[in-house]
Amino acid sequence: MSKKSITKKFRVFYHQVDQMGIVHHAQYAYFLEQSRIDWLRNLGIRYADLERDGILMPLTEISIQYKRPLHFDDSFFVHTQLTSFDNYFVTFSYRLELEDKTLVATADTRLVFMDATIRRAIKCPPFILDHFTL
Amino acid sequence: MSKKSITKKFRVFYHQVDQMGIVHHAQYAYFLEQSRIDWLRNLGIRYADLERDGILMPLTEISIQYKRPLHFDDSFFVHTQLTSFDNYFVTFSYRLELEDKTLVATADTRLVFMDATIRRAIKCPPFILDHFTL
Amino acid sequence: MSKKSITKKFRVFYHQVDQMGIVHHAQYAYFLEQSRIDWLRNLGIRYADLERDGILMPLTEISIQYKRPLHFDDSFFVHTQLTSFDNYFVTFSYRLELEDKTLVATADTRLVFMDATIRRAIKCPPFILDHFTL
Amino acid sequence: MSKKSITKKFRVFYHQVDQMGIVHHAQYAYFLEQSRIDWLRNLGIRYADLERDGILMPLTEISIQYKRPLHFDDSFFVHTQLTSFDNYFVTFSYRLELEDKTLVATADTRLVFMDATIRRAIKCPPFILDHFTL
Repeated sequence: MSKKSITKKFRVFYHQVDQMGIVHHAQYAYFLEQSRIDWLRNLGIRYADLERDGILMPLTEISIQYKRPLHFDDSFFVHTQLTSFDNYFVTFSYRLELEDKTLVATADTRLVFMDATIRRAIKCPPFILDHFTL
Repeated sequence: MSKKSITKKFRVFYHQVDQMGIVHHAQYAYFLEQSRIDWLRNLGIRYADLERDGILMPLTEISIQYKRPLHFDDSFFVHTQLTSFDNYFVTFSYRLELEDKTLVATADTRLVFMDATIRRAIKCPPFILDHFTL
Repeated sequence: MSKKSITKKFRVFYHQVDQMGIVHHAQYAYFLEQSRIDWLRNLGIRYADLERDGILMPLTEISIQYKRPLHFDDSFFVHTQLTSFDNYFVTFSYRLELEDKTLVATADTRLVFMDATIRRAIKCPPFILDHFTL
Repeated sequence: MSKKSITKKFRVFYHQVDQMGIVHHAQYAYFLEQSRIDWLRNLGIRYADLERDGILMPLTEISIQYKRPLHFDDSFFVHTQLTSFDNYFVTFSYRLELEDKTLVATADTRLVFMDATIRRAIKCPPFILDHFTL
């Protein structure tokens, strides 16, 4: 299994903050999605191409643990890694940190490979599997 | 041209409010979209069916004038009407008001009829035109 | 502990659907939030008043299991109940179902009571506790 | 009046695309907001500091003309400039282009200076005015 971890930097945009003055918890799902897509790109897999080739990767599970709030204009980092995969599913884990390493949140997401036409789960296509197992 | 105006009630959800404590201006586009889709439904046109039949209605212009802020849990009304249409384009106008008629915002959106397959503008399909001209 | 469960009906709006043609997974967090706020309202607690009185309830954990996709214009129901609470935290569980009882998703969220001024966790205020234990 | 124009690069994220396969029109308001905040930062004004100092800049008008759709993973540029201001209001104009200069959209937003405490319009604070008129 690929041990590769990638790190993506984000800055909090104004509209992501709620009236408590902190980033709304739902926004984290977007940070994770963008990080996951960059993780794939880093392996040479463009998610846009996958979908064009008829392979979807919908989410089947998400869990997020919020440790410290984020505020408007904060910079932070998302560390993403592949933690497990079997034939149909792949799980990514994430760690969100401030620049000084303060833990912001941890998260996991599980995705399934799906055929875009028949809308059924499929086994991980070999050319992706190759990337994952390098 | 159909003079029909419909009114849809909304309540502000928590995540729609920004750190100024007011509904974020971008959220209004969603209120308009939902109102417009209800306007069509009220004429007997389900937008979901339109897309399934290969007709898209992407937006080409939007303008919104914000008069009074909306806050979390506020109830308000969107009055929607068709203000003009020609072969390719249709324009809706909106008026957002509180229950006591206080004006919240006015808005206009222009949409184009588009063929989903060739992704080109098309003339308003006759069965829609019939609804518009009643 | 309050055994009360409430059910809230939703309809999928156009902007909530992604290019897979299904409701984007992050949108579910908004459905849960709105359901939770209605659950509180049903007990006589207006969340807007809580915040005005200096009590915040930020999320500390969320987990969602996606079973079936939702599409544009689908109607569905969110069943919400309080599943546990201690001095500082409260946990809600959710079950999303179509009208024919098809399971769409299950979810849990954990929230903490927080003082808006000092931004520290506080024990559940007695007037809320009374509602929870009825 | 400052003639300064700044350019900010964006890449379309997955969740910003709707089921037509194009960036949802409401998302453009976020691109403009982020560009405007960068425009201010470029002049030495951090919007986060403004709000902390009790000065808000809510939007009073927005208009967007959509010329070409944006798709997932597209890169594009937003050119932002100050086009007019008087005592209370400031107007920014925007031009969204692909890398090859294809026009994606044009837009204008008008904002008002507001005192955060009394929630009333105020004249543009002198230290901001100085930046605008350089």
